[in-house]
Amino acid sequence: MNDKNTPHIVIIGAGFGGLSAALKLVHHPVRITIIDRRNHHTFQPLLYQVATAGLSPGEIASPIRWIFRGRHNVEVVLGEVQDFDLDRRVVKLANRELPYDYLIVAAGASHAYFGHDEWEPLAPGLKTIEDALEIRRRVLLAFELAERRAASGGGQVQLNFVVVGGGPTGVELAGTLSGIARRALADEFNSIDPKQTRTILLEGGPRVLPAYPEDLSRSAEEQLRELGVEVHTSAMVTGIEPAAVIMGKTRLPAAVIIWAAGVAASPLGKKLGAPTDRSGRVLVNPDLSTPGHNHVFVIGDLASLKQKNGQPVPGLAPAAIQEGKATARNILRDLEGKPRKDFHYLDKGSLATIGRAAAVGEFGKIHISGFLAWVAWLSVHIFFLIGFRNRILVLIQWAWSYFTHEQGAQLITGDQTLPSWTELTREEQSSNKEIPADHAQAS
Amino acid sequence: MNDKNTPHIVIIGAGFGGLSAALKLVHHPVRITIIDRRNHHTFQPLLYQVATAGLSPGEIASPIRWIFRGRHNVEVVLGEVQDFDLDRRVVKLANRELPYDYLIVAAGASHAYFGHDEWEPLAPGLKTIEDALEIRRRVLLAFELAERRAASGGGQVQLNFVVVGGGPTGVELAGTLSGIARRALADEFNSIDPKQTRTILLEGGPRVLPAYPEDLSRSAEEQLRELGVEVHTSAMVTGIEPAAVIMGKTRLPAAVIIWAAGVAASPLGKKLGAPTDRSGRVLVNPDLSTPGHNHVFVIGDLASLKQKNGQPVPGLAPAAIQEGKATARNILRDLEGKPRKDFHYLDKGSLATIGRAAAVGEFGKIHISGFLAWVAWLSVHIFFLIGFRNRILVLIQWAWSYFTHEQGAQLITGDQTLPSWTELTREEQSSNKEIPADHAQAS
Repeated sequence: MNDKNTPHIVIIGAGFGGLSAALKLVHHPVRITIIDRRNHHTFQPLLYQVATAGLSPGEIASPIRWIFRGRHNVEVVLGEVQDFDLDRRVVKLANRELPYDYLIVAAGASHAYFGHDEWEPLAPGLKTIEDALEIRRRVLLAFELAERRAASGGGQVQLNFVVVGGGPTGVELAGTLSGIARRALADEFNSIDPKQTRTILLEGGPRVLPAYPEDLSRSAEEQLRELGVEVHTSAMVTGIEPAAVIMGKTRLPAAVIIWAAGVAASPLGKKLGAPTDRSGRVLVNPDLSTPGHNHVFVIGDLASLKQKNGQPVPGLAPAAIQEGKATARNILRDLEGKPRKDFHYLDKGSLATIGRAAAVGEFGKIHISGFLAWVAWLSVHIFFLIGFRNRILVLIQWAWSYFTHEQGAQLITGDQTLPSWTELTREEQSSNKEIPADHAQAS
Repeated sequence: MNDKNTPHIVIIGAGFGGLSAALKLVHHPVRITIIDRRNHHTFQPLLYQVATAGLSPGEIASPIRWIFRGRHNVEVVLGEVQDFDLDRRVVKLANRELPYDYLIVAAGASHAYFGHDEWEPLAPGLKTIEDALEIRRRVLLAFELAERRAASGGGQVQLNFVVVGGGPTGVELAGTLSGIARRALADEFNSIDPKQTRTILLEGGPRVLPAYPEDLSRSAEEQLRELGVEVHTSAMVTGIEPAAVIMGKTRLPAAVIIWAAGVAASPLGKKLGAPTDRSGRVLVNPDLSTPGHNHVFVIGDLASLKQKNGQPVPGLAPAAIQEGKATARNILRDLEGKPRKDFHYLDKGSLATIGRAAAVGEFGKIHISGFLAWVAWLSVHIFFLIGFRNRILVLIQWAWSYFTHEQGAQLITGDQTLPSWTELTREEQSSNKEIPADHAQAS
């Protein structure tokens, strides 16, 4: 298999797109090299569960080497791609050049702060295991700080958790955080009442889950309110300060701020020299290859492709998986001397979870929400979770949490000190009424 | 329960000692405040499993608040004790003074580098979840570095994992690390052969597990060799350098160095003003109170007490648990106007695990080793693991690992760069024969 004449396919990124391409190619007489900055594939749809103390990192991540153990035609490289030389067909790493016959760039996306990168340390986003652990740390430490103050006679500080962005990530984070404050932690503190925590979701557009039909957006908003989340739409965030979100003249104090408002494509897209869209995604050919370099494919969140109906292929895991498989098939067709086929996205429907027993789902004209949608969401995500062991562990954790209302992974790891972003001062607290408490929330 | 006249018991440290005292006291009409620097109790006997990628942090740690949820007479404080004022009966935190009626100091021990604190970053010890994750990161990154070098034509670097100290922690780390290299990772790399990794255990005394009878030390050493560990006794470490252990004139290159050679009692012991032994442990009265302050108790690894047979009470979890319970009972006797009782350690036997299906155990005159001892070890540790959910999760992980030879938590989190401690140079590699490969090792 290490024959120099065996076609060599280099895949950058072991997310859903890169992984599915590799898993399709591995059974064929090709050599595969997978490059990733992490040693593990992260099951991103469940990252919010790590951030909200429901699951442990090991339960939603699989080591890439473990996935391809015993596959002697797969090389896994822990490293970061610096650049390309597309004419010489070479990928450049810090200490090594990797020649390829085919290149699949599946480097994904990260947070976008709309030119305000200084907001990142104040309002972390959620893309990696480390992000999730940082959010978990901040949330749990905020309660500890409030308890400490109250216990030493300082009274109960108003804790606000503010989630910026009403897409799927923002919605599931807000719904789950509210559940934690109202149920999981309710009985664990003596000096504060965690139920007094406000979870506030800020969405710039007119409705949450803007990619979903309007009736499901309405349903999602209702379910969020039932979980105790205050939803503010058309709320334009103009600034992030330590422990506060600024919206024009309004200053919203916040013990924890989470950024779920925008993604930017990996900078590797631009290094390919191909045309990109506003968010840096590569405008690919209908077969997902790049203009001018038909041995170079771009898939997943880094690719921009219009479907026949004029709609863009969505930035979702199922789309990335389909693109990965289609690209693998096209490479195999090339090798067999057959013509390539254009990629067509098959929309099997989509599901967004909101919190405990709350979700929405769209399957063509069938729209579902509430408990039914939540069970569908659980089933699909357990099914696709990589690794048999992980599936059992996650099932147990979820069953436990569902019946006990407890979160299983409530650990503060790393720095245990209480940093400045939680330092709500008395003044900040008194200005806390600028956004009125939402009347629609249930207890 | 928050009545000012209710006796207030302050417990410092939520390890085995502090926790068992609190769990005994909680059902009585007293107020309890537990102070810890972490928000979780760590099940220390399984920490080596996190360090060796077998378990996730969430599976061996329980949030202290969760343990005492719904107990309104327990206050949990995340914080660090700065000092005491024993005359005023006050514990001093950074921002708060805590008055007590009874004080239980169960602050435990940490690594001792025999006056060479500069060795700590080069050779981390294993006392906290963070320590375990750091060791896991170093071990997995060492393999990644070696693979990267080999893949770019640099040849296979000799990887040496060196464990300093042949007590229970050193023995279980060495045995498990060797198993990982030889089985779990054997099939995951293309350019290197993880089986070539040497795991070297250095013990300064004449035998490993010096606290056990000689026949069990011999058995442990044999079982270590069967697992592929090179055991060197009477090996005095005189220096730690980046990527090397120095023993007199011998320089042993090491990709990862782990320190399991000594513990020092918490500095809080000295702040009590009581007499301490060489390692800083407080010489307590037979009822575990401190000389001159009979309302102040010291228990667990921070306490030094001789049994009637002249032997010291060992620094083991069962001893700490018994001391915690005995102290709780003595406080309750005080409150009931009854005389206190002296503490007597009941030795129920001890077990030390070595690796897969390898362990030794001592129950009075009955000595067991091998598979039987290992099953006994597993059963005892599963049984005492706190939290029903954790027990199930750990059982599944162990069953999985046992039958598949795979480690479930092989994630590199945190810094993904390969730091200097793994930078084995060619020269270091060539000097690698100063300690000859052990002939007794099995494959």
